[in-house]
Amino acid sequence: MGNDTPYDQGLDRTPANYQPLTPLGFLERAASVFPDHVAIVHGALRRSYADFYARARQLASALADRGMGRGDTVSVMLANTPAMLECHYGVPMCGAVLHSINTRLDAAVIAFQLDHAMSKLVVVDREFAPLMAEALSLATVTPLVILYDDPEYDGPGAIDGAEDYEALLATGDAAFAWHMPRDEWDAISINYTSGTTGDPKGVVSHHRGAYLLAQGNALTTSMAKHSVYLWTLPMFHCNGWCFPWTLSAIVGTHVCLRQVRSGPIWHALAEEGVTHLCGAPIVMSLIQSAPEVEKRALNRRVQFFTAAAPPPESLLASMDAAGFDVTHLYGLTETYGPAVVNEWHEDWCDLPSNEQARLKARQGVRYLPLEDLSVLDPDTMQPVPRDGQTMGEVMFRGNVVMKGYFRNPSATQKALAGGWFHSGDLGVVHPDGYIQLKDRSKDIIISGGENISSIEVEEALYRHPSVAVAAVVAMPHEKWGETPCAFVELNSGQTVDEHQLRTWCREHLAPYKVPGRIIFGEIPRTSTGKIQKFLLRARVSEPCQEP
Amino acid sequence: MGNDTPYDQGLDRTPANYQPLTPLGFLERAASVFPDHVAIVHGALRRSYADFYARARQLASALADRGMGRGDTVSVMLANTPAMLECHYGVPMCGAVLHSINTRLDAAVIAFQLDHAMSKLVVVDREFAPLMAEALSLATVTPLVILYDDPEYDGPGAIDGAEDYEALLATGDAAFAWHMPRDEWDAISINYTSGTTGDPKGVVSHHRGAYLLAQGNALTTSMAKHSVYLWTLPMFHCNGWCFPWTLSAIVGTHVCLRQVRSGPIWHALAEEGVTHLCGAPIVMSLIQSAPEVEKRALNRRVQFFTAAAPPPESLLASMDAAGFDVTHLYGLTETYGPAVVNEWHEDWCDLPSNEQARLKARQGVRYLPLEDLSVLDPDTMQPVPRDGQTMGEVMFRGNVVMKGYFRNPSATQKALAGGWFHSGDLGVVHPDGYIQLKDRSKDIIISGGENISSIEVEEALYRHPSVAVAAVVAMPHEKWGETPCAFVELNSGQTVDEHQLRTWCREHLAPYKVPGRIIFGEIPRTSTGKIQKFLLRARVSEPCQEP
Ligand SMILES: Nc1ncnc2c1ncn2[C@@H]1O[C@H](COP(=O)(O)OP(=O)(O)OP(=O)(O)O)[C@@H](O)[C@H]1O
Ligand SMILES: Nc1ncnc2c1ncn2[C@@H]1O[C@H](COP(=O)(O)OP(=O)(O)OP(=O)(O)O)[C@@H](O)[C@H]1O
Ligand SMILES: [Mg+2]
Ligand SMILES: [Mg+2]
Repeated sequence: MGNDTPYDQGLDRTPANYQPLTPLGFLERAASVFPDHVAIVHGALRRSYADFYARARQLASALADRGMGRGDTVSVMLANTPAMLECHYGVPMCGAVLHSINTRLDAAVIAFQLDHAMSKLVVVDREFAPLMAEALSLATVTPLVILYDDPEYDGPGAIDGAEDYEALLATGDAAFAWHMPRDEWDAISINYTSGTTGDPKGVVSHHRGAYLLAQGNALTTSMAKHSVYLWTLPMFHCNGWCFPWTLSAIVGTHVCLRQVRSGPIWHALAEEGVTHLCGAPIVMSLIQSAPEVEKRALNRRVQFFTAAAPPPESLLASMDAAGFDVTHLYGLTETYGPAVVNEWHEDWCDLPSNEQARLKARQGVRYLPLEDLSVLDPDTMQPVPRDGQTMGEVMFRGNVVMKGYFRNPSATQKALAGGWFHSGDLGVVHPDGYIQLKDRSKDIIISGGENISSIEVEEALYRHPSVAVAAVVAMPHEKWGETPCAFVELNSGQTVDEHQLRTWCREHLAPYKVPGRIIFGEIPRTSTGKIQKFLLRARVSEPCQEP
Repeated sequence: MGNDTPYDQGLDRTPANYQPLTPLGFLERAASVFPDHVAIVHGALRRSYADFYARARQLASALADRGMGRGDTVSVMLANTPAMLECHYGVPMCGAVLHSINTRLDAAVIAFQLDHAMSKLVVVDREFAPLMAEALSLATVTPLVILYDDPEYDGPGAIDGAEDYEALLATGDAAFAWHMPRDEWDAISINYTSGTTGDPKGVVSHHRGAYLLAQGNALTTSMAKHSVYLWTLPMFHCNGWCFPWTLSAIVGTHVCLRQVRSGPIWHALAEEGVTHLCGAPIVMSLIQSAPEVEKRALNRRVQFFTAAAPPPESLLASMDAAGFDVTHLYGLTETYGPAVVNEWHEDWCDLPSNEQARLKARQGVRYLPLEDLSVLDPDTMQPVPRDGQTMGEVMFRGNVVMKGYFRNPSATQKALAGGWFHSGDLGVVHPDGYIQLKDRSKDIIISGGENISSIEVEEALYRHPSVAVAAVVAMPHEKWGETPCAFVELNSGQTVDEHQLRTWCREHLAPYKVPGRIIFGEIPRTSTGKIQKFLLRARVSEPCQEP
């Protein structure tokens, strides 16, 4: 079994048969084959693939003229606008690395990211200019600043000394010979995690992974040529799960959306022929709870891909009735977006709807470009039994796992130890091989040696008609080590007290899982709407003695 | 622009984030997610993905037990049967290289291939056993011989001392830990070219390219999950254009077919819910010219992918009427099958049908996983103008270009010189960037310094109602250097003489393009039905003096 078989001789890589994988070429192809096809819809704007590609090259050329090149970070703080799409191509086309900033962060966190990412240039939408100005005043780096004035935005906002985005583009060459990455392992983007577990980390993605996940989106979900995609998912989140690149691969149409509001969404669904959209379950709620005057009859099924949390049963039925097929996806910033899919079996459609919802709440199986997905005991690195019960840590292996965390080799080594990416999510494997998340490692509660899933306790609370939001964390306990503590927001107009809720929990949970305390009031969230349990934990550091 | 940016530090490949690309994992995934989905239909047989995968692993295990490993050649001579599909997975799963032999070749050529490929083991269908026995008696290598007894075949055929395929499988382990390739550049298969230009070469493909082209088939043609694929294309031809692997990626169903006859094709179309099939234009003729009793009404559009020659106008109209959408593909064994696609524009459907046929006769644009396609002057390596007139050599660059020719470094270097794969096909580029083939380099006729496309002359002859087949080659000419010589087969019952046909040509061609001689009679073809012009050229080596 030597390396030197006849198939290893005289058959080496050459430029003719080996090129770095990169999603950038998808745009070149779309523009050359379908130059007049509409690539981008934004308000009244209809931009063709020829123009999209020309503008991306102009951007790359202008950035190169301003000294941006391989390994330089270009930060952007943009809504889901044409400029954001252009940056997904133009920035890596000059060799630079795209850093998309969550527009809902505060100035201090933005300043931290700019410094940590060593940002050299910033593109900012006028709406976010004051916030960016504040962040820059706090930051150590002094990037060039480019201001994007979206015609669809007419509110206030300016920043001193910034160059105009369109003026910048005008200096660029639409025929610029853009740079292929030197290697498909080269960085294409950096995205900071949402900080749910406390410390945002700079996840570095490469061209190879972006190429594969972009194709994986289309393949896993059977997205056909010329699909029309509505931008309800923020592109600053994991590069919009790589869909900015997927759409060029299938020569589809992007329908931009500055703000995720129900009126514009229903308008686009009806008027622009939207076939696909993505978002957290909150986007489905928004679509469903739209005023009746906004809602429209759709003459085709629309594909909705949801992630961030399992889709609740109530939404699934109403989405189906409204004309949407909902697919449940799961992934992390570290996996380029979704890398796990709840692959649906046709015969499941014959089951009762609560049973369908139960099956759809499971996160599922690996995406095609993910080589392996498993739930392992993190100590032994052995897979848990497929019993739907035994918890382990969800782990990923393959070409759509990040390069690592930027400037953080120890976190990178820890995350990629033992040949697997450790997600920090805890889950089980069902007998059919579908995984289901149960908790985050940091959120699990260990009481008297027993594991308690915070999600299970939350689910019991959610079933109470008065409860709007529930978050359960571990609280120190003198006898049991830890016990659950619940934070609860009530539905408006509802009153229920701690005693009543604990009685409810005793009826629905094993005794040791009943929260030792229940605290009412607003629950802290990240800018993306995720609950910050690490802050809740800090609030209950005093040991509790019941029950 | 050093290599050492912060994005190059502490962010290296590990098993967690880098795995070799290989199509073998597609089957593992399909079997684990849809174990009960029908993978293979063959006569009355319905084989699930779980069984398909288990059998592929048994095969890999049994082959490994018999000493097959990395870099060993396993040859197969099989019809489009379940065993052929199993070999597409089982052989590379033990690290070996799959060598599929065209079942229509003669013993001498088979013996040449076995020796050249250094075959260690042969799997042969009982129908071809006598031919293989003859080939083995001529060959120097002495491979192990495995006999496949397809239940759908009940004719004669045996071979001495062969082990039975099912018995072999029974010795294998269905849970065999199959081998990932050490590197995605490792060989997965070897296919000999059809020998149209005289010298069959052993084209070596790698796992990376097979993975990418298999996905490219689905992406380029919008093949949805659970498509049903009918095997009218021989799998021994370029690994069935990688469709054996594509189908696992989309968890589709293979409908096998021992023989390409119109009855079974129409039966499968109607009874098995076939959505896709591939083949040369001859397969379309076969479908169309089926007796009326065989034809069936189809309750859906069927996708037909055709390559090897442009689809003739007459067939396109009747295929459309019968319910088929025809897509024209182009590629070579050296590009894993199709790497060029006639991407159709929706608005072309409004054109008159002859105009549509003209547009569809063009080979088109690059497949998504092909990084570049161009028509270059082979001397200067400069692209020809996009005028639809100027001929150059069609060249390919990218990850779906072969590793090279087996044990033939000089041919490999020549084929991949200057950063492009030289196809030997001559073509033009139209103003919209679509390429169109005009001839093969070796078939072009140079008369008085003017290039004459043999295809153009053939097309003029084909338009004559009496002509069934026409082949035009260069014939030496005392004054002009070369002049066209035509070989013609007439439609049955037709008579036309050389004089009449030359008059016809004078009405349809520039004078210097009119054949100096027209020879009637049977035209030699390769086993795949391609005309062997090199044999025709040998027959007209005498210089001609007219006109
Ligand atoms: N379908 C889903 N169901 C349940 N949870 C999901 C789903 N999809 C994503 N998640 C959760 O979101 C996480 C990924 O989110 P993201 O990468 O945006 O940042 P984060 O993990 O919240 O932030 P940080 O890593 O800084 O704590 C997953 O680890 C998982 O916990
Ligand atoms: N759509 C098409 N239209 C015209 N010609 C085609 C088309 N598709 C394939 N071909 C021809 O088939 C060739 C590829 O065939 P293949 O690789 O099977 O062997 P071959 O080239 O005929 O054999 P050899 O290389 O030994 O001469 C192409 O180079 C081209 O000439
Ligand atoms: Mg995380
Ligand atoms: Mg050839």
